[in-house]
Amino acid sequence: MTTKLLSGKPLAALIQQRAHEETALLDDEGIRPVLAVVVATDDEATHWYVRSIERAAGRAGIGCRIVDLGHDATEQVLASVLADLSAEPSVHGIILQTPLPAAVRADRLVGLIAPEKDIDGANPLSLGRLAVGQPAFAPATAQAVVELLDHFQIPVAGRNVAVVGRSAVVGKPLSLLLLERDATVTICHSKSGPLERYTQPADVVVVAAGRTGLLKGSHLSPETVVIDVGTNVLPDGSLVGDVDEASVTGVAAGLSPVPGGVGSVTTALLLLHTVEAARQQSRTTLLTASTSRI
Amino acid sequence: MTTKLLSGKPLAALIQQRAHEETALLDDEGIRPVLAVVVATDDEATHWYVRSIERAAGRAGIGCRIVDLGHDATEQVLASVLADLSAEPSVHGIILQTPLPAAVRADRLVGLIAPEKDIDGANPLSLGRLAVGQPAFAPATAQAVVELLDHFQIPVAGRNVAVVGRSAVVGKPLSLLLLERDATVTICHSKSGPLERYTQPADVVVVAAGRTGLLKGSHLSPETVVIDVGTNVLPDGSLVGDVDEASVTGVAAGLSPVPGGVGSVTTALLLLHTVEAARQQSRTTLLTASTSRI
Repeated sequence: MTTKLLSGKPLAALIQQRAHEETALLDDEGIRPVLAVVVATDDEATHWYVRSIERAAGRAGIGCRIVDLGHDATEQVLASVLADLSAEPSVHGIILQTPLPAAVRADRLVGLIAPEKDIDGANPLSLGRLAVGQPAFAPATAQAVVELLDHFQIPVAGRNVAVVGRSAVVGKPLSLLLLERDATVTICHSKSGPLERYTQPADVVVVAAGRTGLLKGSHLSPETVVIDVGTNVLPDGSLVGDVDEASVTGVAAGLSPVPGGVGSVTTALLLLHTVEAARQQSRTTLLTASTSRI
Repeated sequence: MTTKLLSGKPLAALIQQRAHEETALLDDEGIRPVLAVVVATDDEATHWYVRSIERAAGRAGIGCRIVDLGHDATEQVLASVLADLSAEPSVHGIILQTPLPAAVRADRLVGLIAPEKDIDGANPLSLGRLAVGQPAFAPATAQAVVELLDHFQIPVAGRNVAVVGRSAVVGKPLSLLLLERDATVTICHSKSGPLERYTQPADVVVVAAGRTGLLKGSHLSPETVVIDVGTNVLPDGSLVGDVDEASVTGVAAGLSPVPGGVGSVTTALLLLHTVEAARQQSRTTLLTASTSRI
């Protein structure tokens, strides 16, 4: 079987273009979408990633405010910055970039991101709203997976999707998005035992476990579609996913690789979410203004 | 195979007793836990159910305030009552009882229940906190399932649990609770196609779909444990679950029936949650008082 390469680049370009078009429309109304990225690390790969968001934002006409608090930022400082950005009308989207200083409890901080600005779905309230079908931004990586499946017209309704990984950032929100699209979802993880029990019967396998070479061709039935969401940095600095591409190629019907798969779609979605957030917030402001006039 | 009956009664009695003991401890501190149940329906079965909660609360030494707003209550009135109860220090737990008037949007109202008083996990924020592993009350029915499995020492770690039903009240929160216990969870629903594809490989099957006779013996492998969470009222007024008990008996290793299964455990958990909420709120008050003194 020929394994089709499911590249994220064309889809990322489409989403980026849509973000650009919507930014232009907002510009006519005098609104410039602004994304704030809060950073508190010395990690070079993270800074490189944040600069790549900044560049992509610039190309889409979106302002990007990088708030670098240094690797020794306290939880108190981070909390106060997040609260300020949440209250600041000129900022429409907020990302709290990981990693954070060891002493900082990220799970308490994400609750401070205003839900309407939580464009990467980090606040537990966003996840809860997703679960009950209320409007909320999904974590961009999870959404990138379903957008990629849609783009390549890979159906999930009535089919079995195995999600390997149960994180609050990918596995759980992705499962919610897939359920909403009528997939039957099996959530596997490190305690699931032999993976093939769940991946062989699956029509689609999404791997987001953070373990190099975890998914092999022997775990799959022919014609399975595989989406790799793993991001593992090798000692030489190169990025690889969770899929053993050599053994999966020739078995799977399709493979979204790392790098070159969901990553660029994720960045494009962060920008599109920022634009959507700006549009929603400008309408809410107008509504409030016109209501207060009555 | 002999199918063991997994009755909820003994476990419900144990939980009820624990709630009673903890209420006695709180009584020594001058705290009386109070549960408020907001009702806005003429449905007799609902009123019967609410009175059964009230009686069980009385037996455990818990105050129960039934706020009956009538079947024509507006969303505005319900919202204002929920906000008042959330702010009222003498109330520790709040249930917004369904069904609600047709014009009322329950999904907007549940967000008004203060998370620390949300003892039936109805606020999306509670669900989101569950998903990220933060302290929150789970919906009592979902928790009743895992407590029942624990009680009968049915392991789920490393095993496959098929959850039939994807509601925000049972299916989704139950899947989160099972994942936390290291189960591999498959979430099925009305669009999943032939159910046996997922229920036959499963070690445990939980049915919460609201369809009489949905799960039959032919859907199961021998030795599967079945938990019925369905609540269907027949034309003659009797309550039945989603399991076709006649065909499942003799195939399944264990069956938690309806009635007589998770229902009484659910009520007991609502009471225990109320006591826990009262304890947490009294400690928070003490903490706030001592902090403000510094």
